[in-house]
Amino acid sequence: MNAVTIDPRLLDDCHLLGQLASGAVLLNRNAALHWFILVPNTTLGDILDLPVAERDAVIADCAALSAFLKSALGYRKTNFAGLGNVVAQMHLHIIGRNAGDVCWPQPVWGNLPAVHAGDGHHTTEQLLDMQSQLAATLGLVPAALA
Amino acid sequence: MNAVTIDPRLLDDCHLLGQLASGAVLLNRNAALHWFILVPNTTLGDILDLPVAERDAVIADCAALSAFLKSALGYRKTNFAGLGNVVAQMHLHIIGRNAGDVCWPQPVWGNLPAVHAGDGHHTTEQLLDMQSQLAATLGLVPAALA
Repeated sequence: MNAVTIDPRLLDDCHLLGQLASGAVLLNRNAALHWFILVPNTTLGDILDLPVAERDAVIADCAALSAFLKSALGYRKTNFAGLGNVVAQMHLHIIGRNAGDVCWPQPVWGNLPAVHAGDGHHTTEQLLDMQSQLAATLGLVPAALA
Repeated sequence: MNAVTIDPRLLDDCHLLGQLASGAVLLNRNAALHWFILVPNTTLGDILDLPVAERDAVIADCAALSAFLKSALGYRKTNFAGLGNVVAQMHLHIIGRNAGDVCWPQPVWGNLPAVHAGDGHHTTEQLLDMQSQLAATLGLVPAALA
């Protein structure tokens, strides 16, 4: 699987943190909770259409990101989804959730409070620290922060 | 993995169609589109926490249901998710989607039109036919329809 060009709408919504074995790791700019997006190196749209070996690699990276949300960031549970109704490029959501969080128990889509300039964002320091932790624990190859 | 007792809230919303290798297959009663739910034989809550062998078996059954939605029912794409914020028991959503469907491009949760008595349901004939097709193609062990 070769790295693909990431849909600009995903990059508008997210920080590109770097690359794992199966694809690119993004973090939603909305810091109300931690919301990773994995963009696999594929031209297919639906995760369940992937050949088994590629599917296994993608799911393994999603599981590693989910474990990171729990072990490093203290989330009690994660939501996991591949939708792709708006942006057709395959992208998997791995989202840290806690009872009582900002949109609990609703799904995040359409239910997060809006982020305004200078408010509700991850700081550059937080992003650099997350890249370091993901590099150390998951083998992330960090990207230059835009 | 042994079969588990299914949360009654899932059975309120869904028809129990039968069993696959990794768990029970349900079909949402709302027939605005075809929405399968797989309830794996596990006591864990999040799919990405499953041991790899169990995770592979669950994902394989989800992929088979997704392929059925496309090949037998003509859907162009599927949405796939494990949330569990309301019903904590692990259950995976595999949903047939088409551009222009009743809630396109929104996710289904909270966006489907309500189903009323005698309107918007799958018929018993349709459910029996689906059980037969799933038995033939996926090895479903059919359940008696409630």
